[in-house]
Amino acid sequence: MNHLLIEEIVGRALQEDLGFGDITTDSIVPASTQVRGLIHSKDYGVLAGIEVARRVFKHLDPQVTFIELKKDGQSLQPGDLIAEVFGSARVVLSGERVALNFLQRLSGIATQTHRYVEKVKEYSAAIVDTRKTTPGLRILEKYAVRMGGGGNHRFGLYDAVLIKDNHIKVAGGIKAAVERVRSQIPHTMKVEVEVESLEQLEEALRVKADIVLLDNMGPALLRQAVAITGGRALLEASGGLTEDTIAEVAGTGVDLISVGALTHSVKALDLSLDIGEKK
Amino acid sequence: MNHLLIEEIVGRALQEDLGFGDITTDSIVPASTQVRGLIHSKDYGVLAGIEVARRVFKHLDPQVTFIELKKDGQSLQPGDLIAEVFGSARVVLSGERVALNFLQRLSGIATQTHRYVEKVKEYSAAIVDTRKTTPGLRILEKYAVRMGGGGNHRFGLYDAVLIKDNHIKVAGGIKAAVERVRSQIPHTMKVEVEVESLEQLEEALRVKADIVLLDNMGPALLRQAVAITGGRALLEASGGLTEDTIAEVAGTGVDLISVGALTHSVKALDLSLDIGEKK
Amino acid sequence: MNHLLIEEIVGRALQEDLGFGDITTDSIVPASTQVRGLIHSKDYGVLAGIEVARRVFKHLDPQVTFIELKKDGQSLQPGDLIAEVFGSARVVLSGERVALNFLQRLSGIATQTHRYVEKVKEYSAAIVDTRKTTPGLRILEKYAVRMGGGGNHRFGLYDAVLIKDNHIKVAGGIKAAVERVRSQIPHTMKVEVEVESLEQLEEALRVKADIVLLDNMGPALLRQAVAITGGRALLEASGGLTEDTIAEVAGTGVDLISVGALTHSVKALDLSLDIGEKK
Amino acid sequence: MNHLLIEEIVGRALQEDLGFGDITTDSIVPASTQVRGLIHSKDYGVLAGIEVARRVFKHLDPQVTFIELKKDGQSLQPGDLIAEVFGSARVVLSGERVALNFLQRLSGIATQTHRYVEKVKEYSAAIVDTRKTTPGLRILEKYAVRMGGGGNHRFGLYDAVLIKDNHIKVAGGIKAAVERVRSQIPHTMKVEVEVESLEQLEEALRVKADIVLLDNMGPALLRQAVAITGGRALLEASGGLTEDTIAEVAGTGVDLISVGALTHSVKALDLSLDIGEKK
Amino acid sequence: MNHLLIEEIVGRALQEDLGFGDITTDSIVPASTQVRGLIHSKDYGVLAGIEVARRVFKHLDPQVTFIELKKDGQSLQPGDLIAEVFGSARVVLSGERVALNFLQRLSGIATQTHRYVEKVKEYSAAIVDTRKTTPGLRILEKYAVRMGGGGNHRFGLYDAVLIKDNHIKVAGGIKAAVERVRSQIPHTMKVEVEVESLEQLEEALRVKADIVLLDNMGPALLRQAVAITGGRALLEASGGLTEDTIAEVAGTGVDLISVGALTHSVKALDLSLDIGEKK
Amino acid sequence: MNHLLIEEIVGRALQEDLGFGDITTDSIVPASTQVRGLIHSKDYGVLAGIEVARRVFKHLDPQVTFIELKKDGQSLQPGDLIAEVFGSARVVLSGERVALNFLQRLSGIATQTHRYVEKVKEYSAAIVDTRKTTPGLRILEKYAVRMGGGGNHRFGLYDAVLIKDNHIKVAGGIKAAVERVRSQIPHTMKVEVEVESLEQLEEALRVKADIVLLDNMGPALLRQAVAITGGRALLEASGGLTEDTIAEVAGTGVDLISVGALTHSVKALDLSLDIGEKK
Repeated sequence: MNHLLIEEIVGRALQEDLGFGDITTDSIVPASTQVRGLIHSKDYGVLAGIEVARRVFKHLDPQVTFIELKKDGQSLQPGDLIAEVFGSARVVLSGERVALNFLQRLSGIATQTHRYVEKVKEYSAAIVDTRKTTPGLRILEKYAVRMGGGGNHRFGLYDAVLIKDNHIKVAGGIKAAVERVRSQIPHTMKVEVEVESLEQLEEALRVKADIVLLDNMGPALLRQAVAITGGRALLEASGGLTEDTIAEVAGTGVDLISVGALTHSVKALDLSLDIGEKK
Repeated sequence: MNHLLIEEIVGRALQEDLGFGDITTDSIVPASTQVRGLIHSKDYGVLAGIEVARRVFKHLDPQVTFIELKKDGQSLQPGDLIAEVFGSARVVLSGERVALNFLQRLSGIATQTHRYVEKVKEYSAAIVDTRKTTPGLRILEKYAVRMGGGGNHRFGLYDAVLIKDNHIKVAGGIKAAVERVRSQIPHTMKVEVEVESLEQLEEALRVKADIVLLDNMGPALLRQAVAITGGRALLEASGGLTEDTIAEVAGTGVDLISVGALTHSVKALDLSLDIGEKK
Repeated sequence: MNHLLIEEIVGRALQEDLGFGDITTDSIVPASTQVRGLIHSKDYGVLAGIEVARRVFKHLDPQVTFIELKKDGQSLQPGDLIAEVFGSARVVLSGERVALNFLQRLSGIATQTHRYVEKVKEYSAAIVDTRKTTPGLRILEKYAVRMGGGGNHRFGLYDAVLIKDNHIKVAGGIKAAVERVRSQIPHTMKVEVEVESLEQLEEALRVKADIVLLDNMGPALLRQAVAITGGRALLEASGGLTEDTIAEVAGTGVDLISVGALTHSVKALDLSLDIGEKK
Repeated sequence: MNHLLIEEIVGRALQEDLGFGDITTDSIVPASTQVRGLIHSKDYGVLAGIEVARRVFKHLDPQVTFIELKKDGQSLQPGDLIAEVFGSARVVLSGERVALNFLQRLSGIATQTHRYVEKVKEYSAAIVDTRKTTPGLRILEKYAVRMGGGGNHRFGLYDAVLIKDNHIKVAGGIKAAVERVRSQIPHTMKVEVEVESLEQLEEALRVKADIVLLDNMGPALLRQAVAITGGRALLEASGGLTEDTIAEVAGTGVDLISVGALTHSVKALDLSLDIGEKK
Repeated sequence: MNHLLIEEIVGRALQEDLGFGDITTDSIVPASTQVRGLIHSKDYGVLAGIEVARRVFKHLDPQVTFIELKKDGQSLQPGDLIAEVFGSARVVLSGERVALNFLQRLSGIATQTHRYVEKVKEYSAAIVDTRKTTPGLRILEKYAVRMGGGGNHRFGLYDAVLIKDNHIKVAGGIKAAVERVRSQIPHTMKVEVEVESLEQLEEALRVKADIVLLDNMGPALLRQAVAITGGRALLEASGGLTEDTIAEVAGTGVDLISVGALTHSVKALDLSLDIGEKK
Repeated sequence: MNHLLIEEIVGRALQEDLGFGDITTDSIVPASTQVRGLIHSKDYGVLAGIEVARRVFKHLDPQVTFIELKKDGQSLQPGDLIAEVFGSARVVLSGERVALNFLQRLSGIATQTHRYVEKVKEYSAAIVDTRKTTPGLRILEKYAVRMGGGGNHRFGLYDAVLIKDNHIKVAGGIKAAVERVRSQIPHTMKVEVEVESLEQLEEALRVKADIVLLDNMGPALLRQAVAITGGRALLEASGGLTEDTIAEVAGTGVDLISVGALTHSVKALDLSLDIGEKK
């Protein structure tokens, strides 16, 4: 991850919450008071975002000490101590909510991803994310998916080609679309084509698509697609998948299963920051 | 809502997704191709964010026509047409995902809020949000809560006072904390105090707190709190509330119930953008 | 005060003055030369902005040492040593004017506020500021008012409600205006109504306005307003007040007197930065 | 003036005042209501900043119509109609204070400058400003000085050379300082030297300084300086000048008189924006 | 290309040149004067950047009319009329240099690229660029390479993998390096490995590198590499290539030849903007 | 140079190259690995930009140690060690290309400038740059010109007056143009006029232009211009000058020769960063 970008995101989040200042804390807490804050887990899950939490407090005050007791990707259970933050009481109190907002959302994503990954662990299929992320937080949310054991699909419209049905329609066919793209893009990029039928799959294979996205196909069709493809391209299943159906899809032999819900519908992991006297 | 701020959020979200460009669309779709995109609902819910979706496309190209067929706050059912967007195919295809990411998340919040609001509609208690919002999107998420029928708590650490247990500890008591704050803040601001017992509630009332947050109290205690207070302050129940327990809490007579889950754990509303020929 | 915001303001002010560089200093002064700068007062007044002055030099070079010998809010007389700055001669010379521009303006505001506050010190009325501040410096100017012993009115259009005559006209009356606002705003916010007559005051009290702004009323009317209100709302006198008339207004028993001149018409306090050899 | 820079300043000022939104206006005033706002003068003075006021409203909404009835530099008297603004009531009400804050401050500067200029109109000396401007508004304040009939000194540390006593001390003399500067700067720049005695003046003339700043000299000394110089350099009088003493200084024959008070101690010109029905 | 990004680059370039304003033009040219500017070529070359030039003028004033008479990628000869710009004389004069600076540099890149491309046109090898671009202008310079008939290598460190010798050293071998990368990156990305010998090439092919960069190999070695590879990976020749040697390299059968000089050593194409009366 | 501005330029360049992260390095290189990087010259030239290179690495990680072994302005030969950078391998590898891109371009400019300066060293004429710089890098490129022994012309449209033929045409003559400018600009600025004939030169001298730009005149005309002027103004030759013709121009006695090619057509100096084990 590019930490310059994360600093920007953290700085913006703090500005959003602080506005012209934390009027409660600044009025009550003397500048010299020091405290110790303890971040605990109150639920089962997978940690993600500890570095972001650290940067929240450091951004407010580089003098703060932040000690990570759990690492991103580790599993958590209720009562686990995740991190300690020592320093100015004003900084710890003013930064608390922003730090937790990041940490709870990212750990929520890692936890949810981990559940999906566990469901398919007997199969070779990888669980990958989509572009259905929270605007402004994509780099962090895709990181959280990796911490949960998932893989990343492209980061945006710029770093990989995904030819969808509307592109195919405009171009007048898969062949034309792939050829137009190939003449424009860096040689370092793969070409992925979204198909809705086995006929389209075969057309995509003929033009040597590197990856084929099989849109909304049931297990039977997916199995046929795997057989037809015979390793000539990576196959990605997508659309309407839930925790209940994902194992069956993985069993068809596809290489990848992309799941929008990893990032678009997330339950924050329950974490708390408790403040004591600084020892 | 301050639309200058929303333009900034929209611009950032587009930059995040577009990077150096939509290489698929720019390679395949001629600059002159025009299309019509239709945004439909695929689920039951409450709409929020239609203006944000409009700004996404307009930000890419002011020539785009965007027609709203549903308004924020209206209820949706599967198949409902929400909006039409006419214009350059490049713009519609490149903006699609960002527009939906905003619209699905915000409508998800409005929908979830509406469910909570419905549960307590026989009571006078208002459902309000918290600061547990997605970093960078607070202004939008709090708007979505209002569209779902909820109310807003403070927007940040700057626009209202909320004295929590740690502030009280540092100040050496509720009285001292409230007095210190009152001497510093604009006369336009109310003072809210978080209490954990009826003794603390009485102390807060003695110093004329405008609002008292009753932290993690069960229905019996809440009822006593309401009786003790007798209208001298607004009472806000908070902590550990679910859709199942909220009606009972509302029945105790508190004025406000704040629910973090309105914004921290949200299922995106299922919406789609389908592209046809421009008529 | 949110120091992240102050860093931004300081950085912008330095860019404005430095442009592509301080060509005089960079051409003449070797990078290794060290100096000591002494900031003195040349007039009587109240200090405000010492922390901003410190940040100006630190922003240019974190190695600079800045020692505060007076604190914000303290009174000054000609010859008083306010601060010492030690470090690179280039940094001290290049930062001098920007540091003084902040310090002289903010101390000018504190000094002027203090004069108003002194005039009313026998009364309970507080002197408060308005939104008539210099664009871009509001957070600092409102801080300077506090350092002079004044209080702050709202920080902007977002953190408190002030219903003015035009709002009342559009809404069709005070009652309608207050009700519309109450249904939209956070429960943490007070509602202030501007009135021009005692009839309007009574209407505002009937709808339980928290604060009433009495616009341009003379002492006799103000006294009646205080009597009518009987503590049911805070009363704020506003409009056309000068240092000469303010004591009489305070004597009417109003709670607050808002004075635009605290920030819109300010005489910079005369301060100097003298440079000697670094000891 | 670079209008791109002014847009930035205007945008920032609006953000500062609007925060997350004008909660009073947005709650009360329907989006469709249209009004007419009239900006009047309530005092005698010189107008400056009408274009900035226009941009404030246009920045909020390009649909607004803004008609200038007075031009910058024109004199005003109480009751004069300066401009009309037609459009969305929300926009007019939300932009009012920011527009007036700019217009009143800039007109205050133009008015004050004009008073100084009038005092010296029988002499050839020009009244010029300094770098003692409000941080962030220098480009506008220097424009206002021109509108009041004054001239501009350098805009910052980058666009002209001004060698002060500390530079001379470090360099070991005026000659050394001027030579070092001359070897580094663009040939398009003049060199100004600040002197405190006639001996220093002669030294500056010997090294062909283009401009000499005569620091804190009384009329007798200034007259001698003019005689000694004999047109070989521009002479600028500076330091401790008031409206009362400036004519005498101008009478000494100096070319320029720089006055910090033009921008550092300004009384806002009294203007108002009254809102009526849109015809 | 993402035009939002280009607007940012154009805006910054204009700020750099305009500073507080074009003092010459603003002093001399009335705001109402209109002119016609004609952009001509004064040399042979290939055009690139016409859209950027258009945005420079439009950024200053959306009212300007800009008519493109040549398109990017077209060849130019001395005297060719490239574009006409009609509008405010202030805008045309103030924007001229920035528009030409972009257009001359980008056309210089396209022209130089075209020369390289011509040299290898009998072979299948593509000429591609590198990351040796001007800081801040990469998106534009890579576009110019495409306009000259070249192809793009990766846009940055984020959109493709290129494992260099130092990565290999740290990882302890090509195999380890490739495996570590493959476990972390999106499945949409190809893996390129830089090799310095045929042994390394074979190791890279064994781990199925998608692309192999052959660093500083002479024609004989390159030919062997092509034979060994037999189409199992794309082969990219790189290092020390000049216009004189490139045809021989292309003749070896490599797929790609990357040339840093396309962007790091460029002669601006000679263009002029002549101003006449507006018809 | 204003280092705050340079930090901005460096930060932008790093963002451009890093995007969401250096996926190759982050996947392969452990966070704890330390290396030593050595920057060598591979060609003859003049160094410029070593401070910018230092800031690139420091911007990524303040812990990095950067030791300069050559200073800007020093001459280089193949094999010279320019700087050492010690620290995190991730930082050195991720920053390498950006650091070199700056250093090679700026050293290329210094080297080219130095060649021109050498050609005219027997004459008193100074070689100066123009505004034909790379958009966004002007401050750095003009610095590099100074390091190569050249001088700077104005930095932008704001810091000096240059009246060109179009300004003269609009104003109706040189006299009118100069008078209009003189009435508007700071007294600290010189006025330069571009002329195309000796008649125009005489007109410019009559209105006491400080500098006259002699556009595209041959040696004979230039010599006449020098004679006519007789030291009454600085004379600048400009237009169509090459390394071959410049000495003859310098021999005519002009004061300045401006050369666009110093910055618009530059060959990057060949430098390398080699990475070894950290000792």
